[in-house]
This record gives sequence, C-alpha cells and structure tokens, in this order.
Amino acid sequence: MDTAELQDCIHHRFAQVKFLETALTHSSFANEQSGIEDNERLEFLGDAVLELCISEEGFRRYPSAHEGQLTRIRSQLVKEQSLAGMARGLKLDQCIRLGRGEELQGGRERDALLADAFEALLGAVFLDGGFEAARRTILELFEDEWPARAMLPETKDYKSRLQEVAQELFRDRPVYVLSGTSGPEHEKLFEVDVTLPRGERFRGVGSSVKRAEQEAARMGLEFLEEE
Amino acid sequence: MDTAELQDCIHHRFAQVKFLETALTHSSFANEQSGIEDNERLEFLGDAVLELCISEEGFRRYPSAHEGQLTRIRSQLVKEQSLAGMARGLKLDQCIRLGRGEELQGGRERDALLADAFEALLGAVFLDGGFEAARRTILELFEDEWPARAMLPETKDYKSRLQEVAQELFRDRPVYVLSGTSGPEHEKLFEVDVTLPRGERFRGVGSSVKRAEQEAARMGLEFLEEE
Repeated sequence: MDTAELQDCIHHRFAQVKFLETALTHSSFANEQSGIEDNERLEFLGDAVLELCISEEGFRRYPSAHEGQLTRIRSQLVKEQSLAGMARGLKLDQCIRLGRGEELQGGRERDALLADAFEALLGAVFLDGGFEAARRTILELFEDEWPARAMLPETKDYKSRLQEVAQELFRDRPVYVLSGTSGPEHEKLFEVDVTLPRGERFRGVGSSVKRAEQEAARMGLEFLEEE
Repeated sequence: MDTAELQDCIHHRFAQVKFLETALTHSSFANEQSGIEDNERLEFLGDAVLELCISEEGFRRYPSAHEGQLTRIRSQLVKEQSLAGMARGLKLDQCIRLGRGEELQGGRERDALLADAFEALLGAVFLDGGFEAARRTILELFEDEWPARAMLPETKDYKSRLQEVAQELFRDRPVYVLSGTSGPEHEKLFEVDVTLPRGERFRGVGSSVKRAEQEAARMGLEFLEEE
C-alpha cells in the first residue's frame, strides 16, 4: 500500500503506519484474510474525534450562535455525503482495501463506505499523534466548509416551537397571560403564565414580557418532551 | 457562588472562573438578568468532549470489543440518568443558578437539567484547561463505571440481524448458498450467496463458510438500510 501521498494530503506523517493500514481496511477485506483488523473500531473513535473538533471550532467561530445553530452547522459539515466527498478528495477510494464481493458490488463508490473510512483515518491520526494532531488535520480539511456568519441557519424560538407542538398534539394553541411584575422600576421582572390546551400551566420570569414568554414556552416544551 | 468544593471534586482549579459560572447558569436564570450567558453553548461543547473521552477510553479498555459493543457501553455510561447521578454526586444541584419559575417547577431535581449542567461543566474544563485536563477529569469521574470485560453487552451478528430485518420487512427469510471456493488448499476462500426474499443477491467471500455468510449478510443489511 503506497500511502505517502495520502499522508502528505492530511499533513500527518504516521509514526505507526499500522494504524493507517487498519483505517484503510474494510471489513470485507479483513474477512478474506486471517488476523487482519478492519477499520470499524477506528471509525467509532474517529467519529467522536471529528465531532469534538468540529464542535469546538464552531463554538469559537460563531460566538453569538446558540446551541441549536451550532448543532445544525455541525450536522451539515459531518453528514455522510460531505465526508464521502472529502474521502474522494484524499483519494481514499483508491487506497481502501476491499473484499471481492464488496468490490463487485461497487462498494468503492459508496458514500457510506467512504465516509466510514474517512472517519477511521481521523481515528488513526488521533491514536498516532494525539488530539492536537487530529485537530490540525481536521481543521485544515474543513477550512473552506464553514458557512459565513450571515448564513447561519435560523432555529425557531421556543414560543413558535410550542405553538407547533401544541397544534400537533392537541389541535389547539397555548395561551399566554401576563400575571404580574416585580422588582424596582429599573430592573423590573415580568411574569407570564402559559397554559397548555390540556390545562398544565408554567410560569416564566424575564426582564421583558417577551423573555418571560419565551421562558414559559421553554418550560412547557420540556414538559411535553419528557412526557 | 462558592465553587471551591466543586473544583476540588473534579480536580480542576479554573484559571478563568467565568467559564465555571457560565456552566452553572441555567437559561431560566440568564433570562431574568441582562448580559448573562447561559450554559447551553457549553453543554453543546461538553457533550462532544465527553463522547470523545469515553470513546477513547472504551477503545483502550476493551481491545477485542467490536464497534457495536463500544457504542453500547458508551450509551450506557453517558445516558441522562447516569450523568444526572454524577451531577448530584458533585452537588451541582446545589450550585446551579435557576430562574424563579424553573425553581418553583422543581427544575433543580430534574435529570435532564442536571445532566445538561454536568456536560456544560465538562465543556468549561475543556475550554479552561484544554483536552488533557478535561480527559483527566472525565476519566476520574467515570473510573468505577466501566463494565468488567466479561460483562460486555452482546451484539447480534450480521446473519441474525439480517434474518430479523427480512422477517420484519418481507415476512420471509434470506437464503444462503455456498456458490464456490477458490485459492489453494491452505488459504482457501469460500463464496456464499445470500438471496433476499425480493430477489436481490449478494456475494460474500471469506476464509470460512461462516465468515463468507457473515459478509454476505452484512452487504444485504447495508443494502436494506440504504434503501
């Protein structure tokens, strides 16, 4: 297996080449030999390495994005189709070792198989060089994939989401009532009660009516999700 | 907020205490103030940190476990109920800052809220001290949670799983036929064709009939899963 070019592409020179070989070994190949390990364990590890590095970088790049937005950006970046594209960019499809049946079945072209191999490769870098080495490799590979800040995916606020869920579950909408205020004028707090169609009530407190409504809606949503 | 005891418990002394404070701030509290950040972004980060550290440690502890087993062990360790238990062990339920509504609603006792705060705390350690610091904290906290090797959860082999899936989808079973052998006697390869009830056929090659069957079943399963 000549992997010099691949190692150049990911800017990581393996100290222990056996990790790289395992990453490039599909189970169908291992199955035809004795005593060869396939890449499934490395894929398990690489998937988690990738998830953390993309999470961290998203966290740093988008300081005002909230959790739902970060989750959506990450899903977009690490979806199977994207990873398979990266695998092809690295010519993993040419390096991977397949069994005969899988080869005949066109496995070398399959997105799922290539995405798995890509994750296994990242797992191998992590084992060989540690977290920082894997992080460098991943950030370089994904450098051009991050959406511009203005293009961040929108996520729905709690009030809109509760509206939708209530409509779906009960064919009716939640009712919001401003039930009181407290505190001195310059730091006044508003209390809003939301009542779900079945009668459960939740009180949100916030520094504006809008925030109090959002908070009440959040509690209502969590209640319905845990039911 | 007195967090000295908490910092002792996790063996991490924060250089930037603001990360810790944010980890202990529920959105319902931030909602009642101005300019305070809640712990949702840190939870996003901490979830990924936890997943990688548990994945890596599982990988190292169980060198003969396959990917499905490692996934199950990890799910077991990081499930909400377990994390909430750890949060209580660290007295996070006493440290966390909640809004009034959430407090009245009993949020301080809720597993979901405590598990989120626990993950946010790990995200804060990661930001403050880097990957190695987070890893040390996590491995210490989970030291007694790992199952003995003999107790590893069993996962079903491909042939059994294909059987189940075919039964469910088609009310019928796949059929295996040994279609040929190849290679010299001492490294003979067996070819097994599996035919699904609807007629699709997949050929597995392996160094024994059993391995060839498993490989054929794996291809059939992947075909059905991608449909």
